[in-house]
Amino acid sequence: MKLWEDKIRQVVPYVPGEQPQIKNIVKLNTNECPYPPSPMVEKAIREYNTAELRKYPSFVCRELKAALRKTYPVTDDMLFLGNGSDEVLALCFMTFFNSDKPVLFPDITYSFYDVWCDLYNIKYKRVPVNEKFEITPEDYFGENGGIVIANPNAPTSICMPLESIERILQNNRNVIVIVDEAYIDFGGESAVSLLDKYDNLVVVQTFSKSRALAGIRVGYAMAGKELVDALEAVKNSFNSYTLNSLSQTAAAAAANDVEYWEDCRKKIMATRSRMIKELSELGFETLPSSANFIFTTNKNVKAAELFEFLRSKGVIVRYFNKPRISEYLRITVGTDGEVDRLVEEVKNFVG
Amino acid sequence: MKLWEDKIRQVVPYVPGEQPQIKNIVKLNTNECPYPPSPMVEKAIREYNTAELRKYPSFVCRELKAALRKTYPVTDDMLFLGNGSDEVLALCFMTFFNSDKPVLFPDITYSFYDVWCDLYNIKYKRVPVNEKFEITPEDYFGENGGIVIANPNAPTSICMPLESIERILQNNRNVIVIVDEAYIDFGGESAVSLLDKYDNLVVVQTFSKSRALAGIRVGYAMAGKELVDALEAVKNSFNSYTLNSLSQTAAAAAANDVEYWEDCRKKIMATRSRMIKELSELGFETLPSSANFIFTTNKNVKAAELFEFLRSKGVIVRYFNKPRISEYLRITVGTDGEVDRLVEEVKNFVG
Repeated sequence: MKLWEDKIRQVVPYVPGEQPQIKNIVKLNTNECPYPPSPMVEKAIREYNTAELRKYPSFVCRELKAALRKTYPVTDDMLFLGNGSDEVLALCFMTFFNSDKPVLFPDITYSFYDVWCDLYNIKYKRVPVNEKFEITPEDYFGENGGIVIANPNAPTSICMPLESIERILQNNRNVIVIVDEAYIDFGGESAVSLLDKYDNLVVVQTFSKSRALAGIRVGYAMAGKELVDALEAVKNSFNSYTLNSLSQTAAAAAANDVEYWEDCRKKIMATRSRMIKELSELGFETLPSSANFIFTTNKNVKAAELFEFLRSKGVIVRYFNKPRISEYLRITVGTDGEVDRLVEEVKNFVG
Repeated sequence: MKLWEDKIRQVVPYVPGEQPQIKNIVKLNTNECPYPPSPMVEKAIREYNTAELRKYPSFVCRELKAALRKTYPVTDDMLFLGNGSDEVLALCFMTFFNSDKPVLFPDITYSFYDVWCDLYNIKYKRVPVNEKFEITPEDYFGENGGIVIANPNAPTSICMPLESIERILQNNRNVIVIVDEAYIDFGGESAVSLLDKYDNLVVVQTFSKSRALAGIRVGYAMAGKELVDALEAVKNSFNSYTLNSLSQTAAAAAANDVEYWEDCRKKIMATRSRMIKELSELGFETLPSSANFIFTTNKNVKAAELFEFLRSKGVIVRYFNKPRISEYLRITVGTDGEVDRLVEEVKNFVG
């Protein structure tokens, strides 16, 4: 043992989906958008004056906030920007979850939530989803130190109706409720419309999914000014400049191109319907998806075996060897061509 | 008081130098490089395939690590990359400073160190620098929970000789010693050569100063594999993808252009000598600088007044209203033209 070893923090980190560097694979494991970002992003990057990179980025992010205001009914002081929605969520956990009572989240959800709780020594309690993998609002009405709900939830893909989110808010006026809307743009209804009524609500979104910009790492929270101010203070105690200049420029260009964004979302939702239907014909039961991925199972197929088979054929999907969901696969909605490849290989496996 | 207010984290954040959006100012307050980044950066950004931005960035960062290996005698598993050296340092504090004993750093140093300690509830003790603003190695030989030294130190600009760093390491084998080398490329000698001998050493550097890339937010730590592994685990408990794709590309291009980098450094050091000489003729005493800024005082001038005067003339420098240094100004080394403007306005003031 090294002399300094007892000073080192020991943690169990989150494990993201693999990023294989193999050519010609069909990569349906990390819920990226199958389409490139808006052509306006390319234009903005090409025209960017790189001499400006010698300077620190703006931390006001005026241009990017103005672009977001085109879509969301918020003011600049209701927007908090970060280095991907993971950073935004991590800073939210640190800022808002400071209670002796446990923070609540579903037992089946984004597996970063318990990692952040462990990192910041936040007490938490996993609340089981029902047998249909749905979240039951009443389960969140008891005493707690805060709530975080992914809506649509991951990896289940199921979206709660806005009324259920509102009931959770109504019954939790004395804690912060975070709604993680990474996948909201594929059929769900955003809680952003509730910000006026609930000053304890934080809505988190990302450029990584529907805006096709996972590579630039931009996420944002929308909340009342007081909560955004508290987030900014914690952020400024961690890293003054979390959002680099090029990512700000790219994100603003994407947010300004509302038409392209809506077109992308529609295409993905159409492909999703077809994908669910074709897998259904092969015996798969798929949870009702409002995300850019599906969560599917087949009574006659071992999910782990299908996962390995697909992998051997160059089709990468996500398998979680965890209680309750070990017979499911999470599959990103790809292009129509990618989904054809997937369905073909699944056919080969189920025979 | 809001019902949820007691759950909100209260912090006193770090305050970075202002970023005024006024044209034609001479901005000598945040130690940015006065020259644009290498032309290779522009080329790399222009040629970047923006369609790739739909995918998550590489977290292996092979290209960028290979570029850094051109300059530093390290292997890939000795390199930890982050969203600016502030993020790297924040994660280092969280990973390495877990002791009941206080972490030590100078009383006059980078003012983010105590902010991070407060954020992570790390005990710390400020060790006074001597009357010449020098760090005394012996002051760091007692029991402690870890050490962080900026070398060259900020805002003093003074660099410790490598032998002094080594003596601190020799007398602290049971804690982690972080050497923050944000300004090392302007005349100092890096502790990276000591990594082979001291497995408790962490050297942190940045692309924001000598590489003229403050806008892309890339910093890195160099340390033994065990320390880098511990850092990676904490990073992966916070945010899996801290370094976006475009910043990786830009940083790799800059690190590969060693010739441009050396040329930039030489120009800045030459301008610094002239700047110190010309201010000396106006009665200024400047600490011996190994950084891209100077720390200067004048018995006949109130520093706060000169700061305000320069500001009114569009020359922005940095003033710290803090014990021991309230009669000093920190001034970034600009282009020759910017330094001419500065000296001219100082002349007008001292008259």
